[in-house]
Amino acid sequence: MERPLILVSNDDGITSKGISTLINIMKQIGDVVVVAPDGPQSGMGHAITVGETLRLESSTLFEGVQAYECSGTPADCVKMARHFVLRGGRQPNVVVSGINHGSNTSISVLYSGTMSAAIEGAIEGTPAIGFSLCDYNHDADFSHTEEYIRKITLQVLAKGLPVGVALNVNFPKKSNEPIKGIRVCRQANAKWVEEFDERRDPNGRRYFWMAGNFVNFDKGEDNDEWAIANNYVSVVPCQFDLTAHQAIASLNEAWDILV
Amino acid sequence: MERPLILVSNDDGITSKGISTLINIMKQIGDVVVVAPDGPQSGMGHAITVGETLRLESSTLFEGVQAYECSGTPADCVKMARHFVLRGGRQPNVVVSGINHGSNTSISVLYSGTMSAAIEGAIEGTPAIGFSLCDYNHDADFSHTEEYIRKITLQVLAKGLPVGVALNVNFPKKSNEPIKGIRVCRQANAKWVEEFDERRDPNGRRYFWMAGNFVNFDKGEDNDEWAIANNYVSVVPCQFDLTAHQAIASLNEAWDILV
Repeated sequence: MERPLILVSNDDGITSKGISTLINIMKQIGDVVVVAPDGPQSGMGHAITVGETLRLESSTLFEGVQAYECSGTPADCVKMARHFVLRGGRQPNVVVSGINHGSNTSISVLYSGTMSAAIEGAIEGTPAIGFSLCDYNHDADFSHTEEYIRKITLQVLAKGLPVGVALNVNFPKKSNEPIKGIRVCRQANAKWVEEFDERRDPNGRRYFWMAGNFVNFDKGEDNDEWAIANNYVSVVPCQFDLTAHQAIASLNEAWDILV
Repeated sequence: MERPLILVSNDDGITSKGISTLINIMKQIGDVVVVAPDGPQSGMGHAITVGETLRLESSTLFEGVQAYECSGTPADCVKMARHFVLRGGRQPNVVVSGINHGSNTSISVLYSGTMSAAIEGAIEGTPAIGFSLCDYNHDADFSHTEEYIRKITLQVLAKGLPVGVALNVNFPKKSNEPIKGIRVCRQANAKWVEEFDERRDPNGRRYFWMAGNFVNFDKGEDNDEWAIANNYVSVVPCQFDLTAHQAIASLNEAWDILV
């Protein structure tokens, strides 16, 4: 069998430790093409660049790997990979994004640039996986994730994924306790409760830092927060059809303004 | 009954015609608070401002309305409204976002700043609606949307929405044909096929404009693209639980790397 073609992106930028770790794992599995942001794009959600120009430059950061840095968002990177860098040629067998420096469990999937790159892959019809480590440190220890990233990527290459689905994979922070295994989960019911830290700049003008606390309302054991808290790797299959299908019938029944 | 409190935001910025139209409709229904971006934030998806500061300034643009312009994304605006402007006080009965200058049907919901403001409302537990007109013109004619926006908002205020659901409402561009009515729909299976228009700047350096074509793969008549093409108002109930629940069982069955 031909070596698979693997497209790598992320949201922490092309110089982050997480993408470098991911590229080293992927080089053992297949041929790697990298299109990643030229700077940090955390919290960019599924943003794309509209009404502004994009830059794309070759990068020699990774030996033996065709790599590009892009001025846009993670979603832009995957679009440029598909429709510019790889246009007319062989298309990727899998899109992998990460390894994110920080958690993308539960509601964070919505704000995650890492997952927007993966979901963009799924929109293009390519199996796609976002990997995140629950450790925000720039120099985080990713060593315990490598075996699992390899296993999960090989499994996806061998078996594919359901149409319209991308995987959101999170790893517990490195600790003395070994990881117990992999759990397929649902997105936990949790959210951020923001606080805005109000300050004054040197000119006396008001500005704010967004801060806040993460609150988990979910008592279940089948969700990603539970898996991470119990030292499992969490795998949440995510879809880009946002329709609340069960709500269609209830609105049709409840509303008296429909034709 | 007390007049409802209505929080208004958008993604085209506080000076756009769409938000001004929406505020005028909402003033007839209840008390209005506006927190909207201080400039265009189209295509921002569910981005939030991480690692950078935020500004918030009072605005006197709308007579009799407490209004603020915010340097952040639409999602930031709703967070600042909830956790700074309205903190400790009365909370909104409904969050409305728009009226967007341009379509947010089908896959565009993912890239939409308009809908991220609405979904942020739903995350906070408030019924929320994003309104978009399928006309990108800065001076678009919104007159045919007003009656429907009033009806839909009153319906949501009277009957609430299912937990975790926000509405994505799109209107056909103004034409000579009257709107046929309101349809509750699913998100159509359609996508953008990008093309990158490569150019040279005055220094000879390469840059790109993202362009492309919208392709509709959906043959159904129960989706938002069909509704708009047939001169209906489309209402898609959207959820922020991205879990592909049906894929959990299939991965559990297919994978041999699980514990």
